[in-house]
Amino acid sequence: MRTKIKDLKNPPKGFQEIIGKEVTIKGWVRTVRNQKTFTFIEVNDGSTLSNFQVIADPEIPNYQKLAEQLTTGTSVSIEGAIVESPGKGQAVEMQAKSIQIIGSCDVENYPLQKKRHSFEFLRSIAHLRPRTNTLGAVARVRSALAYATHKFFQEKGFIYVQTPVITASDCEGAGELFRVSTLDPEKAPRNEQGGIDYSKDFFERPAFLTVSGQLNGEIFALSHSDIYTFGPTFRAENSNTSRHLAEFWMVEPEMAFCDLDMDMDNAEAYVKFLLQYLMDNCQEDLEFFDKFISKGLIDRLKLIIETSFERASYTYAMRILEKSGERFDYPVRWGLDLQSEHERYLSEKYFNKPVFITDYPKEIKPFYMRLNDDEKTVANMDLLFPKIGEIIGGSQREERHGYLKERMKEAKMNLDDYWWYMELREYGTAPHAGYGLGFERMVQFATGVENIRDVIAFPRYPGKAEF
Amino acid sequence: MRTKIKDLKNPPKGFQEIIGKEVTIKGWVRTVRNQKTFTFIEVNDGSTLSNFQVIADPEIPNYQKLAEQLTTGTSVSIEGAIVESPGKGQAVEMQAKSIQIIGSCDVENYPLQKKRHSFEFLRSIAHLRPRTNTLGAVARVRSALAYATHKFFQEKGFIYVQTPVITASDCEGAGELFRVSTLDPEKAPRNEQGGIDYSKDFFERPAFLTVSGQLNGEIFALSHSDIYTFGPTFRAENSNTSRHLAEFWMVEPEMAFCDLDMDMDNAEAYVKFLLQYLMDNCQEDLEFFDKFISKGLIDRLKLIIETSFERASYTYAMRILEKSGERFDYPVRWGLDLQSEHERYLSEKYFNKPVFITDYPKEIKPFYMRLNDDEKTVANMDLLFPKIGEIIGGSQREERHGYLKERMKEAKMNLDDYWWYMELREYGTAPHAGYGLGFERMVQFATGVENIRDVIAFPRYPGKAEF
Repeated sequence: MRTKIKDLKNPPKGFQEIIGKEVTIKGWVRTVRNQKTFTFIEVNDGSTLSNFQVIADPEIPNYQKLAEQLTTGTSVSIEGAIVESPGKGQAVEMQAKSIQIIGSCDVENYPLQKKRHSFEFLRSIAHLRPRTNTLGAVARVRSALAYATHKFFQEKGFIYVQTPVITASDCEGAGELFRVSTLDPEKAPRNEQGGIDYSKDFFERPAFLTVSGQLNGEIFALSHSDIYTFGPTFRAENSNTSRHLAEFWMVEPEMAFCDLDMDMDNAEAYVKFLLQYLMDNCQEDLEFFDKFISKGLIDRLKLIIETSFERASYTYAMRILEKSGERFDYPVRWGLDLQSEHERYLSEKYFNKPVFITDYPKEIKPFYMRLNDDEKTVANMDLLFPKIGEIIGGSQREERHGYLKERMKEAKMNLDDYWWYMELREYGTAPHAGYGLGFERMVQFATGVENIRDVIAFPRYPGKAEF
Repeated sequence: MRTKIKDLKNPPKGFQEIIGKEVTIKGWVRTVRNQKTFTFIEVNDGSTLSNFQVIADPEIPNYQKLAEQLTTGTSVSIEGAIVESPGKGQAVEMQAKSIQIIGSCDVENYPLQKKRHSFEFLRSIAHLRPRTNTLGAVARVRSALAYATHKFFQEKGFIYVQTPVITASDCEGAGELFRVSTLDPEKAPRNEQGGIDYSKDFFERPAFLTVSGQLNGEIFALSHSDIYTFGPTFRAENSNTSRHLAEFWMVEPEMAFCDLDMDMDNAEAYVKFLLQYLMDNCQEDLEFFDKFISKGLIDRLKLIIETSFERASYTYAMRILEKSGERFDYPVRWGLDLQSEHERYLSEKYFNKPVFITDYPKEIKPFYMRLNDDEKTVANMDLLFPKIGEIIGGSQREERHGYLKERMKEAKMNLDDYWWYMELREYGTAPHAGYGLGFERMVQFATGVENIRDVIAFPRYPGKAEF
């Protein structure tokens, strides 16, 4: 039986339970230090950030040969007794009885040498980078955030709906899309007008990768009341930045009989739950990020958990910006969208805490957002975080058939494509609201990792679909 | 404050806690029965299968008008007192004090009339079918199975890895793929040879929708020991059957320092955990399926939970089939693949319980499965369920560089495309194993629903990408 290092570093029943016990650990050698009469081996198995220290002395079989073969990256199985550690940095260590080399590691060519590697270099070896401290910790934190997401919504009685990736409709009527097809592009069939004959394609029509599960989610909100989606979404924009991915994950709750205030209440509770879950379950990884990646991280997370988020209307925010005396690069005028510099001013300087900005002018927002009684603004909200900007965007949806139709016509949309979306407003419509959280943005915030390409296992962006 | 019907049907602190309380429920009218002096209204809010019964009498405001407007599908908000129910079928009901119509329902055109609709018809109204008993229950069971999946693996210390949907490699080297592109198919750029110039495409190379996250998962198993994926996967096969979807979800655990036996142990424990979780959390939905969709369902689920799964080698299974005296449509001969009729005979007639068939001939299995010492078979397993056939397929992976290379050459694969997969075998390789569970197959088994198109929210298959 193998024992995970996590259970030795943090034994469920305390250290007294494991001291003196013989166990077997399996993992990868991180470092080897040969002393005169014995050898220190640091082993990591990915279950936890910190390595487990093993002492090997000449008593163990093949000691001499092992000393040569045990290089960084080698996979090993080590049996021995757990003893109290006289050294600093760990409570217990292992006195090895036998060491078995499972897989050697070509020390000449192994790219993960014992030094700092740039994030950029690590992206080029995405098959090995999870073995580094930083990327290894990101994977654990990301997994914990995903589980906390399910836990939060399931415990509140939300139904998880897996909405489709392949779609024939385009949620926002905007943004560039990836086309999905089985036609041979070399010799695609043509119709009588000489265009591509999509009736011969797999879905007998043009098909795309989804930009959002929201419209599908609304269907289930109007049958199951409270639902959430959590799946991959796509943007084909040619954005080569540290904030954009072509493929990323979104969490999209949708609630029936829910207005914008209740929507914000849920979003605030969700975000706090996520961060509290990390505090309770990923302390070691967070401390690592705080120390080496982003100083003050844990204090920032705590502040979010403890503070009550502000709420301010777009119109009010505009007045704040106008009176700020700041010199912004982009103009501040009612009707124009907020730029990141404005968002930063509001969340970092003016409010100095998370803030929901609500009720934007309808002209700069999508068709599905509910028109307010002023007929100028819509019932939407953007949640701005200090340092990171918009982390959540949501709205109450337009549940009134007539208003929706009007908005769709204004947006010059093809109503026939949305017959089913319109019908939801004819058969027992109900006020409903929801929001979307860009999951990678949350992983960035929770770890302090700056480039979005480093918080997803295998990033997809212009020119990159390797691994 | 709104109270969910689930919490009235099954109050956390018992019925005595809620009797006499005034609450507000919100949901959709299922049926209305007008009696002489009062009206029965059945309301459903999707939180639970069964409706909540409301009694309205002429005392409440607008009683006459409401009696006309309250038709099936109407969304309502009803305030009233919880009282003990004199009728059968429910412990409590509500005496309405006021009823508010939120969204009317066009009774003439509403497709969900009070009668049985065929699954086929319901597929054509995928935006309304979650409001039916059967599809509503499927959604709740599917959500519970998804959460149980996360719970099982997370509690065992597995890391959830979200592997990419867009990929430049093709896991099995087989099966038809969906192409993903941003090139305009009407006028795609050409290279000097006259072919499509993919260097101008978004990813600067041909890109596809993934058929499996396994190869990516192996990367993380070799850094974090125990991981799982759970995401959408794709097949572009033109299969218009009740067992195939173009887009479906897969659960793929991958474990380092793990052999085939441990792999099967994990798979068996996982499946049992899923079904036990349903027994504990979805009793009402399961009873509904047992009664109306698949008689004996609950007994079948119990049998799986309680029985110990069989394990038999392919070679042994072949001998059983040869000696069976059955007349099969497909030949039975060592080296040929098992057909569904063979699988059914083994799991339903011979073993009469779930059975792992292991160690198939290498010729009929993919390159990544570990070659056994006989050099004829590989260390793989298929888990066969009575009634449903293969529900899980897995294997120990070939962790030996030389053997892997040999197998890839035999399969005429382009080794350059898999440089990173090969490198995992050069840098601290370790025995590892995993499996894939077709999530929709599990939902089918757990609900007894026959057509795979009815266990996913919005099915994708040839000719269908609507909604």
